[in-house]
Amino acid sequence: MPTIEDIARLANVSIATVSRVFNNKPDVSEKTRERVLQIARELGYEPSMPARSLIKGKTGIVGLIVPDISNPYYSEIVRGIEDTCRTRRYNVILCNADNKREKEFEYIDILKNRWVDGVIFHCDYFSEEHYEAFARKNIPIVLAGRATAYDVPYVAIDNFKAAFDAVNYLISLGHERIGLIHGPLDGMKETIDSVDRLMGYKKALSEAGLKICEDLIAEGDFKAKGGYEAAGKILKAGVKPTAIFAVSDIMAIGALNAVLDFGLKCPEDVSVVGFDNIDLSEITRPPLTTIAQPMYNIGSVAAEILINLINGESVERKRIILDHKLVIRSSCKSI
Amino acid sequence: MPTIEDIARLANVSIATVSRVFNNKPDVSEKTRERVLQIARELGYEPSMPARSLIKGKTGIVGLIVPDISNPYYSEIVRGIEDTCRTRRYNVILCNADNKREKEFEYIDILKNRWVDGVIFHCDYFSEEHYEAFARKNIPIVLAGRATAYDVPYVAIDNFKAAFDAVNYLISLGHERIGLIHGPLDGMKETIDSVDRLMGYKKALSEAGLKICEDLIAEGDFKAKGGYEAAGKILKAGVKPTAIFAVSDIMAIGALNAVLDFGLKCPEDVSVVGFDNIDLSEITRPPLTTIAQPMYNIGSVAAEILINLINGESVERKRIILDHKLVIRSSCKSI
Repeated sequence: MPTIEDIARLANVSIATVSRVFNNKPDVSEKTRERVLQIARELGYEPSMPARSLIKGKTGIVGLIVPDISNPYYSEIVRGIEDTCRTRRYNVILCNADNKREKEFEYIDILKNRWVDGVIFHCDYFSEEHYEAFARKNIPIVLAGRATAYDVPYVAIDNFKAAFDAVNYLISLGHERIGLIHGPLDGMKETIDSVDRLMGYKKALSEAGLKICEDLIAEGDFKAKGGYEAAGKILKAGVKPTAIFAVSDIMAIGALNAVLDFGLKCPEDVSVVGFDNIDLSEITRPPLTTIAQPMYNIGSVAAEILINLINGESVERKRIILDHKLVIRSSCKSI
Repeated sequence: MPTIEDIARLANVSIATVSRVFNNKPDVSEKTRERVLQIARELGYEPSMPARSLIKGKTGIVGLIVPDISNPYYSEIVRGIEDTCRTRRYNVILCNADNKREKEFEYIDILKNRWVDGVIFHCDYFSEEHYEAFARKNIPIVLAGRATAYDVPYVAIDNFKAAFDAVNYLISLGHERIGLIHGPLDGMKETIDSVDRLMGYKKALSEAGLKICEDLIAEGDFKAKGGYEAAGKILKAGVKPTAIFAVSDIMAIGALNAVLDFGLKCPEDVSVVGFDNIDLSEITRPPLTTIAQPMYNIGSVAAEILINLINGESVERKRIILDHKLVIRSSCKSI
């Protein structure tokens, strides 16, 4: 394969001059520029990607920081991102940061050093620290599946409205004692999905004139075991819920098992509603009624926006709320 | 930030000479080399990663080609790979190829152009074509979760023995009419896991003096729906199986649902055994007895081997069979 040195030798110019031509810099005579480019073409010179990255200042690589790829919610988002990047001829560097700040900032540094053209980011809470880290490093960023009040592009759903819709559905079936398994609240910071979903639950109850009973509200951890334990607390409290809304399908599956283990039946004794609509929610027995998030599309649209930003194309909307949808299966009945 | 041009100017040498020093090439005088390096140090020169890649001929990036990250089996392997790469200071470019040959070869090309230092690969069937593509491009490769007869490093389990153990367990519980849901056989090529697992099933039956009944064997597609349908075929055939072994947990969950929908109970009427031990297998009701594969470790060990190969370290064993394990939960009973 011909090198930049071969071109310089044959064109009888320095390597610096060849580099200046490839960099499209001004201080090269038109004659020299043409001679260099012609020789490069004749030799079939193709700069390697690292060389092209140096020349263009772009790598064609997008960094992707998510909490944990082995969680089906994220793996679906990541699939949407990678598919879209592939069609736009970008590649994706995958980073798992487990919502741990030190890992997140380590990865932001690494990705910046790697000259990634942009980053798609997801963490539990997008803080001022995050905002400043990206701004300081001057990396284009899009949040996938997470809204923020900061001036940062994002693709998400309306979590408040989604939780409101779920609880409203249960109310429309005649339920009054509705349990809630929410996610970690992390000191009630704003713009956390868990807070929005909790508020949506409360709003639906109060609009229907129903009392909010703290014994019916328990915190989970977005895992099946946490959902199981939270449901256990709610079922033990003596208030006898006729329905439980868990703000993730995985926690809802834990709740389904808790219902069984209390000697109760779903939906005969307790209706259960989940959130996300991961593949799994369809193969539980009973199949789970849930709020569907368009995970794949969240990833895909986020990648589309990021690549447009990278290429300096105009991006009409940088803050996108995609539609959620109530998917009715067999885990709820009217009373 | 100081550039290579600043160093050249201050050292009063050409850019080519500075580059030769960083490349550790011989045709530079010791005096010049020292002057260049000292100025670089004084300026606090840190080459960007693309520049360092050019200098070292290494990128610190590992390519990873899997069929589909949204499948929990792969997302667990990928997590093991990325964690290990992180501790070894490598990054991972993720590629989903859906077991489609044209995507696989497209990604092999792209990864080679990106100068990745090595590739971890998984596809349904590692063919001569794959072997030659990697050999031709001279990229170190390790197969994760897939054995091969070609001279290629891999980390996998003994699928024949694992299936044998699963069926033997059912036989030890007194089962004689044992159904099998196997994976796609794809023309019965060698070294496909599905074939090994089918052979393990047959071997266990014949060693126990039990008849192999073709009505008890059905093909699935490693998805819940396929497992459901395959179990339906087996349950309808009139042979009345007392147990079903599905060679993936996802298919076993489909089988659990089919058992229910036939008005039967698991494990009272039909015992079910899965394969993989994905997280999900623990939260089904009944929790699934299954053959555990160490997915995370398969990924982690594969990454370890690849990085050692890249760094020219001695790798004692390049073909690693990790232990599988029968995990007994509540989906089987003795008869």
